[in-house]
Amino acid sequence: MKTQNRRDFILTTALLGTSLTAAAFAPANNKKNKLQVIHHVFFWLKNPASKDDLDKLLEGTRQLKKIETVRQIHIGVPAAVAPRPVVDGSYSLSLLLFFDDLAGQNTYQVHPIHQEFIKSHSPLWEKFIVYDAAGV
Amino acid sequence: MKTQNRRDFILTTALLGTSLTAAAFAPANNKKNKLQVIHHVFFWLKNPASKDDLDKLLEGTRQLKKIETVRQIHIGVPAAVAPRPVVDGSYSLSLLLFFDDLAGQNTYQVHPIHQEFIKSHSPLWEKFIVYDAAGV
Repeated sequence: MKTQNRRDFILTTALLGTSLTAAAFAPANNKKNKLQVIHHVFFWLKNPASKDDLDKLLEGTRQLKKIETVRQIHIGVPAAVAPRPVVDGSYSLSLLLFFDDLAGQNTYQVHPIHQEFIKSHSPLWEKFIVYDAAGV
Repeated sequence: MKTQNRRDFILTTALLGTSLTAAAFAPANNKKNKLQVIHHVFFWLKNPASKDDLDKLLEGTRQLKKIETVRQIHIGVPAAVAPRPVVDGSYSLSLLLFFDDLAGQNTYQVHPIHQEFIKSHSPLWEKFIVYDAAGV
């Protein structure tokens, strides 16, 4: 939403005496059990100690949100949790994407932005693992 | 948002000649790179062919959304994607949770609903793997 539109909207709703804000929509997007398709990729860098390489990969993954079928994106690094044998915190970068359906993911896979990301960033990683899950 | 409010809102914006709908807020809630903590658990059932066991585990994970620090939940099964060596589709169930921060996840870990879930459902699974990622 453009800032001007947003301002108009907030002003309008304020004038109408309602309390609608973007936050009012959060419940619809949050706790419900979304029947979306998630695509979770974990990357291991060739040089896991290189902040530069991590930054490059980070910057690359951020471009992926421009792909029109990407509904939600979370880019992360291992969280500072207490080590447990069941927790795999050995990866360098986590890339989590939400799609409405498999068609959306297929569009993503062949999209030029994604293809360019792979081409320019794959020299950075040693390996990656993918988990695809369909909401139930 | 209550239906009535929503209808009023849509009517109002229509009358004002704008095109704001809930969808207009999607970019604010979705495509942004959330600095949340995600907790992704993959379960492998002892009896992966048992629909009953999967249903039991599914029902158990659905209770977890009641925990107040869980901001978003996605429960899924391996998506019907083309097999690739990098895709691990061997798990039985995927449980993805979003928290605002590590404190939220800590609350979840010790929460009675979570503890009860582990107690009553752990006999079903052979193993599980956890990935915790903090948004960057």
